[in-house]
Amino acid sequence: MTWFESVNKIRYEGPKSKNPLAFKFYNPEEKINGKSMEEFLRFGIAYWHTFTEDLSDPFGTGTAIRNWDRYEGMDRAKARVEAAFEFFEKMGVKYFCFHDVDIAPEGGSLKETYKNQDTIVALIKAHMKDSDVKLLWNTANNFTNPRFVHGAASSSNADVFAYSAAKVKKQLEIGKELGGENYVFWGGREGYETLLNTDLGLEQDNLARFFQMAVDYAKEINFDAQFLIEPKPKEPTTHQYDFDSQSTHAFLLKYGLQDHFKLNIEANHATLAGHTFEHELRYARVNGLLGSVDANQGDPLLGWDTDEFPADIYSTTLAMYEIIKNGGLGSGGLNFDAKVRRGSFEQKDLFHAHIAGMDHFAVGYKVASQLVEDRVFENIIDDRYASYKEGIGKDIVEGKADFKSLEEYALNLKEIKNKSGRLEVIKATINQYLLNAYAGNK
Amino acid sequence: MTWFESVNKIRYEGPKSKNPLAFKFYNPEEKINGKSMEEFLRFGIAYWHTFTEDLSDPFGTGTAIRNWDRYEGMDRAKARVEAAFEFFEKMGVKYFCFHDVDIAPEGGSLKETYKNQDTIVALIKAHMKDSDVKLLWNTANNFTNPRFVHGAASSSNADVFAYSAAKVKKQLEIGKELGGENYVFWGGREGYETLLNTDLGLEQDNLARFFQMAVDYAKEINFDAQFLIEPKPKEPTTHQYDFDSQSTHAFLLKYGLQDHFKLNIEANHATLAGHTFEHELRYARVNGLLGSVDANQGDPLLGWDTDEFPADIYSTTLAMYEIIKNGGLGSGGLNFDAKVRRGSFEQKDLFHAHIAGMDHFAVGYKVASQLVEDRVFENIIDDRYASYKEGIGKDIVEGKADFKSLEEYALNLKEIKNKSGRLEVIKATINQYLLNAYAGNK
Amino acid sequence: MTWFESVNKIRYEGPKSKNPLAFKFYNPEEKINGKSMEEFLRFGIAYWHTFTEDLSDPFGTGTAIRNWDRYEGMDRAKARVEAAFEFFEKMGVKYFCFHDVDIAPEGGSLKETYKNQDTIVALIKAHMKDSDVKLLWNTANNFTNPRFVHGAASSSNADVFAYSAAKVKKQLEIGKELGGENYVFWGGREGYETLLNTDLGLEQDNLARFFQMAVDYAKEINFDAQFLIEPKPKEPTTHQYDFDSQSTHAFLLKYGLQDHFKLNIEANHATLAGHTFEHELRYARVNGLLGSVDANQGDPLLGWDTDEFPADIYSTTLAMYEIIKNGGLGSGGLNFDAKVRRGSFEQKDLFHAHIAGMDHFAVGYKVASQLVEDRVFENIIDDRYASYKEGIGKDIVEGKADFKSLEEYALNLKEIKNKSGRLEVIKATINQYLLNAYAGNK
Amino acid sequence: MTWFESVNKIRYEGPKSKNPLAFKFYNPEEKINGKSMEEFLRFGIAYWHTFTEDLSDPFGTGTAIRNWDRYEGMDRAKARVEAAFEFFEKMGVKYFCFHDVDIAPEGGSLKETYKNQDTIVALIKAHMKDSDVKLLWNTANNFTNPRFVHGAASSSNADVFAYSAAKVKKQLEIGKELGGENYVFWGGREGYETLLNTDLGLEQDNLARFFQMAVDYAKEINFDAQFLIEPKPKEPTTHQYDFDSQSTHAFLLKYGLQDHFKLNIEANHATLAGHTFEHELRYARVNGLLGSVDANQGDPLLGWDTDEFPADIYSTTLAMYEIIKNGGLGSGGLNFDAKVRRGSFEQKDLFHAHIAGMDHFAVGYKVASQLVEDRVFENIIDDRYASYKEGIGKDIVEGKADFKSLEEYALNLKEIKNKSGRLEVIKATINQYLLNAYAGNK
Repeated sequence: MTWFESVNKIRYEGPKSKNPLAFKFYNPEEKINGKSMEEFLRFGIAYWHTFTEDLSDPFGTGTAIRNWDRYEGMDRAKARVEAAFEFFEKMGVKYFCFHDVDIAPEGGSLKETYKNQDTIVALIKAHMKDSDVKLLWNTANNFTNPRFVHGAASSSNADVFAYSAAKVKKQLEIGKELGGENYVFWGGREGYETLLNTDLGLEQDNLARFFQMAVDYAKEINFDAQFLIEPKPKEPTTHQYDFDSQSTHAFLLKYGLQDHFKLNIEANHATLAGHTFEHELRYARVNGLLGSVDANQGDPLLGWDTDEFPADIYSTTLAMYEIIKNGGLGSGGLNFDAKVRRGSFEQKDLFHAHIAGMDHFAVGYKVASQLVEDRVFENIIDDRYASYKEGIGKDIVEGKADFKSLEEYALNLKEIKNKSGRLEVIKATINQYLLNAYAGNK
Repeated sequence: MTWFESVNKIRYEGPKSKNPLAFKFYNPEEKINGKSMEEFLRFGIAYWHTFTEDLSDPFGTGTAIRNWDRYEGMDRAKARVEAAFEFFEKMGVKYFCFHDVDIAPEGGSLKETYKNQDTIVALIKAHMKDSDVKLLWNTANNFTNPRFVHGAASSSNADVFAYSAAKVKKQLEIGKELGGENYVFWGGREGYETLLNTDLGLEQDNLARFFQMAVDYAKEINFDAQFLIEPKPKEPTTHQYDFDSQSTHAFLLKYGLQDHFKLNIEANHATLAGHTFEHELRYARVNGLLGSVDANQGDPLLGWDTDEFPADIYSTTLAMYEIIKNGGLGSGGLNFDAKVRRGSFEQKDLFHAHIAGMDHFAVGYKVASQLVEDRVFENIIDDRYASYKEGIGKDIVEGKADFKSLEEYALNLKEIKNKSGRLEVIKATINQYLLNAYAGNK
Repeated sequence: MTWFESVNKIRYEGPKSKNPLAFKFYNPEEKINGKSMEEFLRFGIAYWHTFTEDLSDPFGTGTAIRNWDRYEGMDRAKARVEAAFEFFEKMGVKYFCFHDVDIAPEGGSLKETYKNQDTIVALIKAHMKDSDVKLLWNTANNFTNPRFVHGAASSSNADVFAYSAAKVKKQLEIGKELGGENYVFWGGREGYETLLNTDLGLEQDNLARFFQMAVDYAKEINFDAQFLIEPKPKEPTTHQYDFDSQSTHAFLLKYGLQDHFKLNIEANHATLAGHTFEHELRYARVNGLLGSVDANQGDPLLGWDTDEFPADIYSTTLAMYEIIKNGGLGSGGLNFDAKVRRGSFEQKDLFHAHIAGMDHFAVGYKVASQLVEDRVFENIIDDRYASYKEGIGKDIVEGKADFKSLEEYALNLKEIKNKSGRLEVIKATINQYLLNAYAGNK
Repeated sequence: MTWFESVNKIRYEGPKSKNPLAFKFYNPEEKINGKSMEEFLRFGIAYWHTFTEDLSDPFGTGTAIRNWDRYEGMDRAKARVEAAFEFFEKMGVKYFCFHDVDIAPEGGSLKETYKNQDTIVALIKAHMKDSDVKLLWNTANNFTNPRFVHGAASSSNADVFAYSAAKVKKQLEIGKELGGENYVFWGGREGYETLLNTDLGLEQDNLARFFQMAVDYAKEINFDAQFLIEPKPKEPTTHQYDFDSQSTHAFLLKYGLQDHFKLNIEANHATLAGHTFEHELRYARVNGLLGSVDANQGDPLLGWDTDEFPADIYSTTLAMYEIIKNGGLGSGGLNFDAKVRRGSFEQKDLFHAHIAGMDHFAVGYKVASQLVEDRVFENIIDDRYASYKEGIGKDIVEGKADFKSLEEYALNLKEIKNKSGRLEVIKATINQYLLNAYAGNK
């Protein structure tokens, strides 16, 4: 018996397949620019959404039907490990991610919590030995337990700071034990509910102290994973300190942490902050901060984090464009920080959703690669900014101009001629690339 | 010489064409379900955005470069008519729409304004005689002039009510003169800037009185165009009375106007009201109110009306699905209430943008037709709601159940089994339909 | 021993009191227009937020420390009843509201659920006999249990419709048993998660059928409570059918239910729908639909229902203005559908929060009464709309004008003179009223 | 004759005054903490909104009735200077702010534009000699003219960069000439309409180059005004580079500009970025970046910049709290970047609106001063963060703790006790301070 006995390994069947349990666009072995899709896309599965999530919402208890829920406590935790590795194998996904509390229940004391984790980590390690699945990243959940009500590293209570430090210390050790390639910090409650009782300066200083201690400890234990901060503007807290990529950049620069951290960009967090997903990726890329991606999407008409599986191929295309231009994600990956809808409560839906997510990123990858190959955006940029390659523009870029030379130039300008930005054509071109991507298929 | 001499008639060249001045997806003669695309799609061009708009925004004066701006006043108005008919012909579009002030400048008095309009209407009529272009709808602009600062039919000033009535009366006459198939009411300032100085009850009553007078006058002059109200929630006014389709339905029902009006649904207005475009279309369709469409799109991250040309093929597909299920739009059409971006200020951009809009609706039409033909959504619905076709469900629908019989039934229920809503698969299926739509093409 | 032994009955101590456990502005006996504050304000306490809520959020488990949580199951339910009546008495609040699941745990079967409710209802009734506390309204929670995943009366599953009917039937009976003055319908899942699998027409028809059955059954059992629908636009569901007051009005009119229902207007639901609280109240009032109020507030920068205790005295003032103009709320009241913040997890915070809410509504009531007494808004309105009291304006309002007479009038108008709307002065005046309200106090 | 002959100098008449042309709360000579209101509040009048603005909106032409509009061109510019100084004197305001294009019309060439400015600057200087009015700041409008369609310093066209530089150079010279105390950069089009045609890296580099050149030139001409950047997230452009205070901080730090710039924080820009006004002020204050304030407010239900006069005394109170804690604004001030509503189109409304704005900030100042004097927030903070003043908390803050010592501490913790954040009481306390502020008045 298995945990998903009704589902076989998911195969690629091509764009016309009617089989809901097959890939239509993600072909792991298909090569683009000399790399297989599997190598480049580095998909990861989020333990919390796929194995721990019960699909409750603020107005309803969980709807998820999961075979492992026949157990409780550590037995359920063990069953989840088995289910997870079966799922990874059937999906053909090589990476996974977890928070401490996803894999093992908290105990009555920190010590017992450690013990529970050690048990499960050993089990995970044993499974990893028998498979080629790797740990993309792990993290400490320092937001669910009531003790984090006022934050973790930014708590008003020093005991909570200490407790949070212990939890992260343990996860750094576990990350090292499992060969984690990255380590993520998402500070769900590192921010404030209200400014009215908050010492914003002290809280941000403490948060920086915490990050520095993490850097120091990782060095001490020779854990060389890439550290990642995951920005999010709000929710659960009214205002979070890692609001978006640029805000987090300010934080890193202010506290001299910029050499130790990159960003884990999440699509839904981008839109909650008022940015497009591609904006956050672009800002991170241009500033050498693009580390990894939480691949999901939000609902633009809803004001909370819906963590939907990626279904918008415009978004996956523009995201993959940034990733290609970044030379890939390095040690990072595309982690499905996405949950099936509350109405999609059957186990089979877990497969459907991941297939969809992988297919849609595969489409995005294919289309973006074609756009890059044809230099679609590059030609637009070259043409648009040509004036900075010669004359006064070159002087500006090379630091040879000043306000006086520029004024003299401006006073002698006969006419300023701008060119149309042609946004309508560019958008139509993207649609053409999308609609033609599989035009050879029958 | 012509107004757009650098552009030839736009032809269909197929999905792979690299020519920005050709259709890639809109093939006017292509037949779907026995009707040509041209017949079914009934595209309309918005005079205001294409011939009058200068691309100013709240922080900048107009950028548009238009040949007819070498003239002023009535000369410019005449030049615009020529340009318009040349544009219609080159685009192959058969319908257009206008506000009174788009076609002719306001005069120093209402009488002079009438005279200006009469001159231009005669010119338009002459052009229409030589072409197969028709008037989709006209309307009175009762919001731009400072006199409408406190509203038009809902103004606090009875003189403004009277003036507005005169303007609509004139447009009804012009609509009749030009054979207009519909007449639209968009009340940009029919609402309030602040409740603090507003008699909401009187204003809504007056608005209803105004509509009834319009119905009466149209009957009197035998103008049998379909009357349409265009909902919009806010902007320019803080709160508009025709907030969305369902609110407008309440208004029509309350005042007994429901037999005389349908709705003109605009995509960008839908999203500003917190709805999807397809929601507004669906609500209108189910309630027999779907009259016509303002085909554009907004930016989900911006809080104002951007009136972009339709570029999102998800949206055009779901819109066309509703329109197909509605049996078409009757006397209505797909009016491009869309403007080129401020950065797309060249005349050529007008062609690019309309080509894009038409192509993207053509894609939507094709994909939606295939979805309908394959009964994709219909099968989902049939299966999901099957319980209402028999047993207790049938009793409910047929009015044979009451709380007592239902309680008795519920008390005897062993278990309630819901089925997954399968949203992830449905979204993946739509993507498959999109990506396969042109899969036969080379 | 009591459940709140550290707190004594809350007394009025006046605006300067530093005692957090005293009223500063709410003086129950203070008379305004011949009625005491207690009589007019009709405050209600929401069982779910005050006695059942654990202060969990989507990213964290409950933080609330409650004495009754030392018990479980029915014992806890009984303890809550005791705590509730102690709380009502100490706060001096005369009304309360509940959902079925707030007062008693669900059983393994519907029958057992009924039994649990009967036990607790008997206990409540006994407590009511010894106090002057009344039931403002009760309702059925048809959204928390997983069975309602696809809706209740609008479920795709007829069994769920039946089950929901049974639950409402039971609550109607309990409402009658306890002398409930109103009965509320809030359809948290009466809407859709996605249009893509939804038969919107059937679902709305079924919802109307359900309401009609409720009307019929109440009549059958002679339960003469006022029926109330509580609009909310979204959350938990993507789109709810009772989106806002005007949408709900459309629903009532379409299905001929308008004589049987009024609205329960919630502040936070108003803002989530893109309206001010006072807009929703005004629309309801003008249309004879203002039945009761859920007194809370949202955070305008957050996109979900925060259900905060009312703290904004602008909002309470404008709300009370509408309520005064409505001649009070009839059988309705001001129910605190509000929860203490997650960070305010101590029992004492329950008192602090309700004191705040009552004080802030008392301020609003006092200020609004003064505004009405001084005819501040009435004078503005009389002046602004004076043109509808004579001449052409009178003709319009009395139905004596038509487009022809109005055009004739407009053609002869020399000039249209509008008057400033003076919004800046009006807002300053409101501030003056607020800041002067207690100017006599020392 | 004067430009505002119907209005006399505005006097303080106290909280009960019914005179719309009198201050009720702003008493220039009233001393708080040894400084008069006039000295501390440093109000400024925005030339553009008060003397140039015509109250047009995207759907309507201007409604403003202004005496100086009987003139055109340079004559109107001169009339505005006279009107401005009369207005400053009648309002008793000591500072003003302008963009180049507000004070003088653009000429046919840059040279002519300079000449127009020189003429008006001489006139302004002459008026300043006869009054005690000072220039709070000036700036170059590099966004209205079509040449800035693709940005100014971040334009894709190097000619536009040069032209923008010339315009800023001129304004630096004018600032020096008029003794300006600050110089502001608001980059309305320094951002992008779409990422699809944008070289974000080059544009941000160029913007930094531009700022550095401005710093260099100011040094060269010994213009020692404080440089200020004014963040705004979006509008007119889809995405602006100076999104909010923290993003701008990142920009300054990345490019080494942090010693030369502070921030000009605008209330309405804060809320458009998803922050409260006080958040932006607090972040700037804590990071030594709080330079000046654009005093206005937005409508939380509208998605665009409404630039309303400040009417919310919660907001003015919390803003003044930050300003007091900042030790005042130094060379900065409270500039009313606010316009009368479109419906408030009479000249008298300009007085009403500024009186309201000044009164509401005076209230905020008075209440905030009392809060500071009573250490209301300071006591809350001291108590809440007490754990960082001793033991493990002190170690953390002093850099003596690391993950190992913290883990050891955490493992030995018996229990973590958090304290309620008491938000409800804090909000009630603020209301008490507001309502009691004038309680001694009769």
